[in-house]
Amino acid sequence: MGALHEGHLSLVRMAAAENTDVFVTIYVNPTQFGVNEDLASYPKTWDTDMRLLGALDRELAAAGAGRVSAVFAPTTQTMYPTLPPDSSIPGVGSFIEMRPLGQLLEGASRPVFFRGVATVCMKLFNICAPELVYFGQKDVQQTVVINRLVKDFHLDMDVRIGATQRERDGLALSSRNVYLGDRRRAVGIVLNQALRKAEAQYKDGKRKRGDILWPADAHADEVMLQQDALEPAQRAKFEVDYISLADPETMEEIEVVDEKKGAILSGAIKMLPIEDPRPGEELGVGDGKIPVRLIDNIILEPVV
Amino acid sequence: MGALHEGHLSLVRMAAAENTDVFVTIYVNPTQFGVNEDLASYPKTWDTDMRLLGALDRELAAAGAGRVSAVFAPTTQTMYPTLPPDSSIPGVGSFIEMRPLGQLLEGASRPVFFRGVATVCMKLFNICAPELVYFGQKDVQQTVVINRLVKDFHLDMDVRIGATQRERDGLALSSRNVYLGDRRRAVGIVLNQALRKAEAQYKDGKRKRGDILWPADAHADEVMLQQDALEPAQRAKFEVDYISLADPETMEEIEVVDEKKGAILSGAIKMLPIEDPRPGEELGVGDGKIPVRLIDNIILEPVV
Repeated sequence: MGALHEGHLSLVRMAAAENTDVFVTIYVNPTQFGVNEDLASYPKTWDTDMRLLGALDRELAAAGAGRVSAVFAPTTQTMYPTLPPDSSIPGVGSFIEMRPLGQLLEGASRPVFFRGVATVCMKLFNICAPELVYFGQKDVQQTVVINRLVKDFHLDMDVRIGATQRERDGLALSSRNVYLGDRRRAVGIVLNQALRKAEAQYKDGKRKRGDILWPADAHADEVMLQQDALEPAQRAKFEVDYISLADPETMEEIEVVDEKKGAILSGAIKMLPIEDPRPGEELGVGDGKIPVRLIDNIILEPVV
Repeated sequence: MGALHEGHLSLVRMAAAENTDVFVTIYVNPTQFGVNEDLASYPKTWDTDMRLLGALDRELAAAGAGRVSAVFAPTTQTMYPTLPPDSSIPGVGSFIEMRPLGQLLEGASRPVFFRGVATVCMKLFNICAPELVYFGQKDVQQTVVINRLVKDFHLDMDVRIGATQRERDGLALSSRNVYLGDRRRAVGIVLNQALRKAEAQYKDGKRKRGDILWPADAHADEVMLQQDALEPAQRAKFEVDYISLADPETMEEIEVVDEKKGAILSGAIKMLPIEDPRPGEELGVGDGKIPVRLIDNIILEPVV
């Protein structure tokens, strides 16, 4: 979707290490944005993206690895050649739908999201005919959707998942982070902190849902109460969309982690607009007015 | 879907004339049958199908044309590897949906039909990787759906349509015709007759919907009244599902035929069960108890 950051670049590096030719697709896909979502304000940074890819390609050339052979940046007329893209429910057009997988978690908050993702990825796969496709772990449900797409539709390609790239404090890189500004950036780490507390429980031998999730929920509640208690000029309010413990293949909530399968810990929060900006405060792109949805996840690996 | 008849074989001959290797897929796809439709009773004639294809392949060998290189007859576990096939609305699983195209005409009567067709065809295409795919004109809306599938999802293949194969009196060949029996077989020609009357209007220069369709509707009404007036031991009752004059790319009903585009005349009727069989009467497979849906169509070609 462009607005490239180190997370995207790490996927290109991974692909270049394993292949001679890397195709990069950049397309802000309208059908994965709901009608009230942020398609219009989604960051588009074409010139910067090309500069980053050019610099990375020179780095790859020097390293003797695979190269960025092409950037595919289609028009919407190419991607949706008959009917204009529609983000309504149910939506006219040709779409791939995955039920219930596409309706859970991110799909519950964003009902057309995975329909748009699966559809555009099928088109991109058919156009580019890749042997391997690379997706980031940060969008964990997306990786599950793509794996399912490849399996259910018998696509002749392998799916590779690159690790989530993070800021020093653990915040997952995201194109949407530019909207946070300093104040929301500082509080937004709550999601990663909460997930790490749950992960610690799993590492400590806990397997039951409640035993794993309670410290995560408690931490999110505590930070939320702290923020709510501050003055509007100091605080960054947020809402928790979900904190999930799910089966790694179906993304359905589980009561107990099967040690042979492991599980996916994931969460989503919405950073609300800054209520009362302070003079000179760094508010990010959009002046702190744009709500920012943050997601993150940690894989609980199977115990061998 | 197997239960091969001369219509299917004509497609294999067409493919063999244009290619060196012809793959035949035979799979009775459960997801294109609604929960109350005839999946269980759909004719399965594997041994006969193989005999027919073997004989045809010997004929092709003698003619020096392309050959039947393989028959792909997958299990449902192969075609639906994760979730069991579901024919409910909305239905769980990974599906391709085309709106509104898949909801019109046949899709109005059979809400899951084109979802099942598009989904299974995408899977078959990905598995077999054909350069050309062959479909029969008889399922005209299916040909429009497949063309749309190839275009919208950028599938790298060409779609070829083979002419509808017919009995001497014009009845379109169909695997379901074995259920008709003599009495319903004789009356079932009403649909083709009606469409031909509409076609004659177009050939006579008529372009408006009413001018083209009225003789078709009138003929169907007349035959229906004739049958209703007969004794139950003599008659074959039927219902008209639709008689349509539609745009050739969208299958949406049109008021006037655009001479540059032409149009599709199509119809569907349901032959009702025989009410009162006569002694010794040939009733077809299922003893005349199975309702039989018949479809047919005529392309109104563009005027150059």
